[in-house]
Amino acid sequence: MKCMILNGPNLNMLGRRDAGHYGSDTLDNIQDFLTGRFSNHEFIFMQSNLEGDLVEAIQSLVDSDVDGLIANFGGYTHTSVAIRDALDLLDIPIVEVHLSNIHAREKFRERSVTGAKANGVITGFGKQSYVLGVQALEELEKKQ
Amino acid sequence: MKCMILNGPNLNMLGRRDAGHYGSDTLDNIQDFLTGRFSNHEFIFMQSNLEGDLVEAIQSLVDSDVDGLIANFGGYTHTSVAIRDALDLLDIPIVEVHLSNIHAREKFRERSVTGAKANGVITGFGKQSYVLGVQALEELEKKQ
Amino acid sequence: MKCMILNGPNLNMLGRRDAGHYGSDTLDNIQDFLTGRFSNHEFIFMQSNLEGDLVEAIQSLVDSDVDGLIANFGGYTHTSVAIRDALDLLDIPIVEVHLSNIHAREKFRERSVTGAKANGVITGFGKQSYVLGVQALEELEKKQ
Amino acid sequence: MKCMILNGPNLNMLGRRDAGHYGSDTLDNIQDFLTGRFSNHEFIFMQSNLEGDLVEAIQSLVDSDVDGLIANFGGYTHTSVAIRDALDLLDIPIVEVHLSNIHAREKFRERSVTGAKANGVITGFGKQSYVLGVQALEELEKKQ
Amino acid sequence: MKCMILNGPNLNMLGRRDAGHYGSDTLDNIQDFLTGRFSNHEFIFMQSNLEGDLVEAIQSLVDSDVDGLIANFGGYTHTSVAIRDALDLLDIPIVEVHLSNIHAREKFRERSVTGAKANGVITGFGKQSYVLGVQALEELEKKQ
Amino acid sequence: MKCMILNGPNLNMLGRRDAGHYGSDTLDNIQDFLTGRFSNHEFIFMQSNLEGDLVEAIQSLVDSDVDGLIANFGGYTHTSVAIRDALDLLDIPIVEVHLSNIHAREKFRERSVTGAKANGVITGFGKQSYVLGVQALEELEKKQ
Amino acid sequence: MKCMILNGPNLNMLGRRDAGHYGSDTLDNIQDFLTGRFSNHEFIFMQSNLEGDLVEAIQSLVDSDVDGLIANFGGYTHTSVAIRDALDLLDIPIVEVHLSNIHAREKFRERSVTGAKANGVITGFGKQSYVLGVQALEELEKKQ
Amino acid sequence: MKCMILNGPNLNMLGRRDAGHYGSDTLDNIQDFLTGRFSNHEFIFMQSNLEGDLVEAIQSLVDSDVDGLIANFGGYTHTSVAIRDALDLLDIPIVEVHLSNIHAREKFRERSVTGAKANGVITGFGKQSYVLGVQALEELEKKQ
Amino acid sequence: MKCMILNGPNLNMLGRRDAGHYGSDTLDNIQDFLTGRFSNHEFIFMQSNLEGDLVEAIQSLVDSDVDGLIANFGGYTHTSVAIRDALDLLDIPIVEVHLSNIHAREKFRERSVTGAKANGVITGFGKQSYVLGVQALEELEKKQ
Amino acid sequence: MKCMILNGPNLNMLGRRDAGHYGSDTLDNIQDFLTGRFSNHEFIFMQSNLEGDLVEAIQSLVDSDVDGLIANFGGYTHTSVAIRDALDLLDIPIVEVHLSNIHAREKFRERSVTGAKANGVITGFGKQSYVLGVQALEELEKKQ
Amino acid sequence: MKCMILNGPNLNMLGRRDAGHYGSDTLDNIQDFLTGRFSNHEFIFMQSNLEGDLVEAIQSLVDSDVDGLIANFGGYTHTSVAIRDALDLLDIPIVEVHLSNIHAREKFRERSVTGAKANGVITGFGKQSYVLGVQALEELEKKQ
Amino acid sequence: MKCMILNGPNLNMLGRRDAGHYGSDTLDNIQDFLTGRFSNHEFIFMQSNLEGDLVEAIQSLVDSDVDGLIANFGGYTHTSVAIRDALDLLDIPIVEVHLSNIHAREKFRERSVTGAKANGVITGFGKQSYVLGVQALEELEKKQ
Repeated sequence: MKCMILNGPNLNMLGRRDAGHYGSDTLDNIQDFLTGRFSNHEFIFMQSNLEGDLVEAIQSLVDSDVDGLIANFGGYTHTSVAIRDALDLLDIPIVEVHLSNIHAREKFRERSVTGAKANGVITGFGKQSYVLGVQALEELEKKQ
Repeated sequence: MKCMILNGPNLNMLGRRDAGHYGSDTLDNIQDFLTGRFSNHEFIFMQSNLEGDLVEAIQSLVDSDVDGLIANFGGYTHTSVAIRDALDLLDIPIVEVHLSNIHAREKFRERSVTGAKANGVITGFGKQSYVLGVQALEELEKKQ
Repeated sequence: MKCMILNGPNLNMLGRRDAGHYGSDTLDNIQDFLTGRFSNHEFIFMQSNLEGDLVEAIQSLVDSDVDGLIANFGGYTHTSVAIRDALDLLDIPIVEVHLSNIHAREKFRERSVTGAKANGVITGFGKQSYVLGVQALEELEKKQ
Repeated sequence: MKCMILNGPNLNMLGRRDAGHYGSDTLDNIQDFLTGRFSNHEFIFMQSNLEGDLVEAIQSLVDSDVDGLIANFGGYTHTSVAIRDALDLLDIPIVEVHLSNIHAREKFRERSVTGAKANGVITGFGKQSYVLGVQALEELEKKQ
Repeated sequence: MKCMILNGPNLNMLGRRDAGHYGSDTLDNIQDFLTGRFSNHEFIFMQSNLEGDLVEAIQSLVDSDVDGLIANFGGYTHTSVAIRDALDLLDIPIVEVHLSNIHAREKFRERSVTGAKANGVITGFGKQSYVLGVQALEELEKKQ
Repeated sequence: MKCMILNGPNLNMLGRRDAGHYGSDTLDNIQDFLTGRFSNHEFIFMQSNLEGDLVEAIQSLVDSDVDGLIANFGGYTHTSVAIRDALDLLDIPIVEVHLSNIHAREKFRERSVTGAKANGVITGFGKQSYVLGVQALEELEKKQ
Repeated sequence: MKCMILNGPNLNMLGRRDAGHYGSDTLDNIQDFLTGRFSNHEFIFMQSNLEGDLVEAIQSLVDSDVDGLIANFGGYTHTSVAIRDALDLLDIPIVEVHLSNIHAREKFRERSVTGAKANGVITGFGKQSYVLGVQALEELEKKQ
Repeated sequence: MKCMILNGPNLNMLGRRDAGHYGSDTLDNIQDFLTGRFSNHEFIFMQSNLEGDLVEAIQSLVDSDVDGLIANFGGYTHTSVAIRDALDLLDIPIVEVHLSNIHAREKFRERSVTGAKANGVITGFGKQSYVLGVQALEELEKKQ
Repeated sequence: MKCMILNGPNLNMLGRRDAGHYGSDTLDNIQDFLTGRFSNHEFIFMQSNLEGDLVEAIQSLVDSDVDGLIANFGGYTHTSVAIRDALDLLDIPIVEVHLSNIHAREKFRERSVTGAKANGVITGFGKQSYVLGVQALEELEKKQ
Repeated sequence: MKCMILNGPNLNMLGRRDAGHYGSDTLDNIQDFLTGRFSNHEFIFMQSNLEGDLVEAIQSLVDSDVDGLIANFGGYTHTSVAIRDALDLLDIPIVEVHLSNIHAREKFRERSVTGAKANGVITGFGKQSYVLGVQALEELEKKQ
Repeated sequence: MKCMILNGPNLNMLGRRDAGHYGSDTLDNIQDFLTGRFSNHEFIFMQSNLEGDLVEAIQSLVDSDVDGLIANFGGYTHTSVAIRDALDLLDIPIVEVHLSNIHAREKFRERSVTGAKANGVITGFGKQSYVLGVQALEELEKKQ
Repeated sequence: MKCMILNGPNLNMLGRRDAGHYGSDTLDNIQDFLTGRFSNHEFIFMQSNLEGDLVEAIQSLVDSDVDGLIANFGGYTHTSVAIRDALDLLDIPIVEVHLSNIHAREKFRERSVTGAKANGVITGFGKQSYVLGVQALEELEKKQ
């Protein structure tokens, strides 16, 4: 399975932020961890702080050979109509993940504008959210 | 690992409801599937349509030998302060799961009153939401 | 026609409550009155103060020989997602009734969460709301 | 019993509109059907697309020999303070009816500004809503 | 001074309505009373239950010899953008009056959509609201 | 008739403020004008910028020989529960007045918390609002 | 192409109103302008200040030989459920037009209740909004 | 005086929950403490996690020899229309109590749906809330 | 124990106001009653209609020998950030009391801005609210 | 006339998205179509998925020789204060266009933050929205 | 430059309040500090806990020789229309200051009713907010 | 002190925009002015119209030798969760500045999403806001 792991704003700074919400791993750690754990899959890692870059990364998956998308849109999760519209372009399975539990923080983080266009959302398990995301994708892939 | 799988209102009717939102498996199918898939764990399955029964099932875990809780509170997810308060009693890991993606249905299903007291929430993967829930619990257990 | 008449919280106390809103008949009176008036139909009367019992009473109608449901969910009308989800399980006609006019009381009684899943709603005619409910069911039955 | 059946905007076009919401009968069909079904009553049928005409039709019932009003105010149901104020002028029983279930459509149809001044509201039974309305009136009449 | 006294829906039924809110005078009484009290002025009395008629009555004042408008838009006060837009056409003084105190009734009567385009609003003094309205107009006229 | 004219915050500065909203008269001018115009009445003029002083001025009217109250509570009109509660103590007629039209300014000026406890409200006529207020009081007095 | 140009409240007064928002042309000017500009089309011009008249004008297009509707509902745009329901009766293309830009005025003008039932909305170009409306209709007609 | 002390969801777990909000006493401790402190009164203690049980406990007081009710409805305080309706059945004094100060916690705990039907509410004094509740009941009893 | 009993706007008029909400005792009666009932305590009684006076009365307790505060802020309860901030200055126990049940009156009385900074709130027991307040203070004092 | 046609996020993917809302043309098709249709005008086509790029494209028009702007800001239409502020920099005519009817989709698409700073908005006519946009610009240009 | 430094409720207690929000300096310290730091300016210091006193302090600046106002209205910042109206009387520069960052505390502190009538607002720098306020005033003064 | 001055969307166009709100200086003028005025400090000037660039500029300050940040996020101030999250990464002092007074313009500019993560906010003093920002930073630096 070939899978894109797409990360949004500030996730490049993981490990430098508030450990209470996001844990101490860096994004590199997480990416290495995923590669090690799922040696049978091919991952395309991408991170951007720009909303439009994320839109274009999603667009690049149209008619590509990528089988699934795991995305953490960070702060754009709660506001971006543009990313939501881009997700509508895809036919492959989409899993939205979050490191922290979005239902347990500020009220404005409770709603996911983008998650409405994903197959499902996994929130609150730190780096394990990504692992669970890959596992979810494996199952979604079987059904296709 | 000993783990309670707690299901709320109408989940006893799974397989008889709208397949578009919930899939065609019955709750028994899902429970058998989990038992088969995770033969190393012991599961306590419980389902109730009564809010108070769910509160008491949660209370029964206090000072028990159960290691984690996976819960799908169905329609009570969005309204029950009593269940939320019960979850506050627990020290063990809690994973809230939903068959359908709560971010992609009616607006009143977007908010999880109970999920704020779980470690994380997994929503939208059908019966795989439970599988992912057990996997999430395994990882949370390691950290304890 | 075999028909369930399902009553929710506090309707067992009818006749003891504020006569202005609910009239002076007891629930027994109303049930006898319906039995006498519609001798051609068979009624299953049930009342419960528990939300979960009402959910289960509705579930019991799935694949049963009951032809229709008349329900007054009392205070749960305005809040219960669990009952609303249970109503979604049924293929038989459903009529929601209320003794008092829900449009003419406190603002929170104006909205019916459960009524959205009924064929129709009859509100404000005291015990005649039930009579009209049976008559509505007779017509809905003809169309099936 | 002498009874006015008052219909508001677009109900003159019944049978030409979306059959899913309103059924295939024309307003004439419904009126003939009522006349046939209730040969013991005298009906005054009136329909207008003008809010003010509906206000005046209601005013015409003051100190008249009409015994009751059955009204479907169509799109004005949800907004008209003027019709609501006119209903306040009447001492006779008033039944508000709707062809479709106002609790199961757009959010703005959920609230009835005018229904607060009726004895009761019957919603969702197609042309049977009118039949039930007459039957409700018969009972309300007995109590006067 | 030549002055239009414009009354909206249900004001033709004054004296037949709830005396608590509106007093026992009929609209004729009030008009006679005004004619008697202000013999130096010429009044054009008009009442309509139709929103569009009220719009047209206001339009008729453009480039006319009428010096001022006293208007009670009844139930349209709280909702009519069309009447508000019509008032914008006028250069003459406008006084909005109400028999009852709109600040002391239902919440939806508190706001005056139309009053924003009047010079001032007088509310709560029964038929004296009209008398005060004429007196206000006399003063506004002096300033023109 | 003995009548209190009570003015709230910033009305002592009239004539120094934005002439567009409030006119060019000072409060003294207005008070002299009222005294001259209504030589048959006795006026008690009071102004305070303190909410509590206004409360106490209202309280001083209980069991006094004052026949009526005309009040302009300025900025407290829109927020003061304390003044509203004080007005509830009075049995004499109360008229609330405003120089500018509160329906035609900022949204927060549209609502009158205090006006709900007055007999009526006169708004938008500059110093004539006070004149109209006295005239309204004369009529209210006759009915007592 | 045969096309109805339907105008709502106060549009008969065009040219007499605030030139800033609506321009200096009269409705007659605009209608002559359209007739001159589009000599290949037949226009039916209608204007009414009455909501119900507009409903009936729309109804008159059902099963008629008119090919399209261009409508400016004026103040009713933002509130009329009745007009919205009438538009639902039509199978022909519908274009809603506004002289001023409804997104750039008072907040209550931002929402178009009726526009949801049109093919498209053109707002802000003065009399050119009508010209653009006819051009839009020509294209919509080609697709039928 | 014979008095029911009714406790709602999760109060059976007192002493095991967050000491900051609720103190360290168990419900048994509190009940023993009340029995010891008020040896002149007879207490009926009841606790349930089920909303419907609480409704029925309240109903059991109708026409009973119980003189007063002290109730802490826990999480149902903020949502239960059914309990509110049940309280309406009683003629005896009702005191609602809370261990923690509901005005100083999450926003959704600020409102008491049930407290509107009690004589009064005592909130924030830990187990002393119950003591104060009994003392309040003694005084309310004297007035009966 | 030395204790301040602080009363806000209009409470000096007790006994003259609506007996339904507030009872027939005067504030003097209540103060004498408290002095008589609790002869072991020293009371400092203060009442003011001015928000700022209440702020200063609270400030006077800082570093004083007063052991506790019982306060009824009347109409300021629902709006005063200044009083709320002043309460934050105190280390002694604070009990907020109300004569009437704030949960059973107008919606704007439901929220207590100031109560969030008290230890607890007692509402609805007439003058007994003060008695209960002193008793609550006695217990709070023991814990200090 | 020299005119910029500016397209926002996801419009580069036109023809690959949901044909129901957006039609089957690609952005290239539309641009060729415009060039062909309006051979007398010069077009500068630009598309970006980045909010900031759109801001800069707008800024580039200041003091340039471009005569007008036609813009479709896609998902940024409903949220971007930055684009709105950039539009404020321009003196040339601006027409906002949308392929689908923003009044007939999700509620969050109803409001145009950016449209408030355009001369007008054209919404719902597929690629014809752009054609109408150019035609609107031609007329706006004449008035300059 | 002669400048009034006006402080509202509870600022007289500075140094005794929560050091986290407000720092440890007393108001005297701050005033001495300002006098020392800006020996070239003359300061008039005033503090009051009464809303009306603050209104009057502002009024005293009309036609005075004071060149500017620095004001911290404490809890009245968020609610006082009366102070806002008083600020409208002034022609001199006005700077609103806050010790704590009003954007980072409770939601109700985010909005400044009074700040809308100041030239600018400085919030969050402890006593330096006053220093910055004087510096801001110096610059504003130069432009006069 | 080494300090970054970070400017957001449209601030590169300063001097070309509405002088009423933003003054006539260009961004270069302001930067030169700051350099001249504070010759003892080193400034890093950066401006971007892209939200993500601003996020990255903030990230670049982590573990850098920059001592403080002065930021004006323009239109992103009111919506950007991504920038807010980036500010959370910093340990150095942060001052948010605005040229115009955000409390005195459109309602949507009143709230600062990003300001909640700054030490303080300075708004309304034109280019002096930056000067005051540097002065604020100097003081904050002393406390570190």
